[in-house]
Amino acid sequence: MTEPDPKPKSHGAGDLPEPKQPPALSSGFERGVEWLRGAGDASDVVLSSRVRIARNLAGFPFMTTAERADRAQVLELCKRRLMNLALGEGRRMLWVDLHTATPDERDALVERQLISRNHAKGKLSTGAGGQDEPRGVAVILPEERISAMINEEDHLRLQSIRSGLALDECLADVDWLDDEIEKGLDFAFHPRFGYLTACPTNVGTGLRLSVMMHLPGLKMTGELEKASRAAHDMGLAIRGFHGEGSEANGEFYQVSNQTTLGKSDAMLLRELNDEIVPRLVGYERHARGRLLGDRRETTHDTVARALGTLRHARLLRAAEAMELLGLVRLGVVCGLLPEVNLDTVHGLLLAIQPAHLQRITGRVLTPAERRSARADLCRARLGLR
Amino acid sequence: MTEPDPKPKSHGAGDLPEPKQPPALSSGFERGVEWLRGAGDASDVVLSSRVRIARNLAGFPFMTTAERADRAQVLELCKRRLMNLALGEGRRMLWVDLHTATPDERDALVERQLISRNHAKGKLSTGAGGQDEPRGVAVILPEERISAMINEEDHLRLQSIRSGLALDECLADVDWLDDEIEKGLDFAFHPRFGYLTACPTNVGTGLRLSVMMHLPGLKMTGELEKASRAAHDMGLAIRGFHGEGSEANGEFYQVSNQTTLGKSDAMLLRELNDEIVPRLVGYERHARGRLLGDRRETTHDTVARALGTLRHARLLRAAEAMELLGLVRLGVVCGLLPEVNLDTVHGLLLAIQPAHLQRITGRVLTPAERRSARADLCRARLGLR
Repeated sequence: MTEPDPKPKSHGAGDLPEPKQPPALSSGFERGVEWLRGAGDASDVVLSSRVRIARNLAGFPFMTTAERADRAQVLELCKRRLMNLALGEGRRMLWVDLHTATPDERDALVERQLISRNHAKGKLSTGAGGQDEPRGVAVILPEERISAMINEEDHLRLQSIRSGLALDECLADVDWLDDEIEKGLDFAFHPRFGYLTACPTNVGTGLRLSVMMHLPGLKMTGELEKASRAAHDMGLAIRGFHGEGSEANGEFYQVSNQTTLGKSDAMLLRELNDEIVPRLVGYERHARGRLLGDRRETTHDTVARALGTLRHARLLRAAEAMELLGLVRLGVVCGLLPEVNLDTVHGLLLAIQPAHLQRITGRVLTPAERRSARADLCRARLGLR
Repeated sequence: MTEPDPKPKSHGAGDLPEPKQPPALSSGFERGVEWLRGAGDASDVVLSSRVRIARNLAGFPFMTTAERADRAQVLELCKRRLMNLALGEGRRMLWVDLHTATPDERDALVERQLISRNHAKGKLSTGAGGQDEPRGVAVILPEERISAMINEEDHLRLQSIRSGLALDECLADVDWLDDEIEKGLDFAFHPRFGYLTACPTNVGTGLRLSVMMHLPGLKMTGELEKASRAAHDMGLAIRGFHGEGSEANGEFYQVSNQTTLGKSDAMLLRELNDEIVPRLVGYERHARGRLLGDRRETTHDTVARALGTLRHARLLRAAEAMELLGLVRLGVVCGLLPEVNLDTVHGLLLAIQPAHLQRITGRVLTPAERRSARADLCRARLGLR
């Protein structure tokens, strides 16, 4: 094991693209984010796909029982290994020590879906912990597609996120990362149970699959609850935009597998990628077809009004902005708002989040100032040319 | 008494400006209307002033007891006299026989505030009557400022309507018309009671004064009810945009005197024009001052969103359109929406009404088509250049 390359080391999340001058409101530094590209299979309904796997280092206690010294050592080992990977031309690894990052940097990482809320807070699954818990995140730049959380619920959670329905490709990404890390670190593995994880529901493959779906059609036709129950019966969990406990503003839903034990990675993935998600996509497309049939005028009215509000409001709360952006996205995808660029909408989904807003405006904002800055941003980016 | 000049005779309300080709959505044939000019005293709060007086022909029973033959004779006498007035250069008299006009023509006259709803319907104050009741309206063109309803509640109701707070000028207008008519017709007059009218509350001076006020500030600060009670205590009635029984969408209120007996015309007018209305104007301006002080951002947000909706909606009901136009008018008058022309807003207040919408689009519209045409009109006229 070699020493980590000191060059691209910890500067916090802002390292990504923190310019000397605060960028103009219309610049959009979040646009490189892979999962906002709006491309890939079924991208009219599936915003992004994500695969996470859990790994733990052999010879160390799980996070649930580890001492702080153990956690510090795990962090150091993982960090060295990750900083030392061969990433290929044009890529580099960003490392962020979350225990020394500012709250704003951590929040920006949550908004970019690179760390979980609990990881940002340093809250351990035991309920203990806090902001100075030794923990970190590694992100492969420039795409931010592949990343790893250190000392979240497990020692390592490896993630890949891609736009559209692309669970296969995501799994290939994390498999690659898994293999690369394993070249220098031993993972806890049981010949019968497979990879061992802190939470029993992850034992075996440790695989967590999820897709971010945009289901405004089902919502507007009143069929969302039915579809949601069907998804639940098929073993899926449906959550809001920011995962567990968050609201589904804008009708963006994270659909994920509930359990991993007893099914192979391949089975889980085939089921979700090839059966369940396509079925939900079909439901949503059918609902949109109805909206564009009988209810075309009222649908057009609804999405156009949402655009009008985003283009004119002087104050916008995040939840309302998400709701309006969700409607505008529906309008764009359905061809009802040809004047709006889908990239702009996707960029705003991220840019309107509190921490990103602060980075874009280049200053710390009170909640009232955020509402104003958020509206300024929407007007500037969605304004008529 | 000479025969009426046959030239400008009854062609219905559409005679005003009915072009061969339906005019484009942005043309705005209603813009000549005096009370929409947005000029005059206190025009930030007072949209228009109106004076009506009631007169009845001597030797004929009042409308409450007249036979149809009496009413037909009254109509004929008034029509001849009105068509024969010396109007001065550049003016002409438009006559509309309401019993032969189309419902759409009658509705357009109501929307232009030239006849009352009951007059449009031919409904007598006794509850009897119907569309074929002999009745008419005379309007001096091109301003449409001075007009006369024949066989409404009284044989004659003379009206003048002007923009801003201008009850003096309106009274001078109807006095002139009164005098001109009286040169050729005798009015029922009692040496002790004054002019006699069908409804006892009008006896004496027969004078009805009203101003159309825009009170969004009082509404938004929650003080409208208090101001409304105060106005009531001062002997005023407050009604909606289209008078008795109509709603005050957009916070446009018709404020009028309740009784006429026992006070001279001059007293009534001085009281309303110089005391009561200016006091209400003061309340409204004070409320707007508060909105532009502490609550400037939320007020700006509210009026800008209203503009955004008008500029983007694909379907608009009349009541909602009035509400939104009222907010936009507040924004324009307060300098929060410098990009919007007040004339455009005033023009739309009339143009979005059902009968005007049909005239503008040049075809008969179902209610659903009206909602769509109304939204098209608002987008076209308020669209960004």
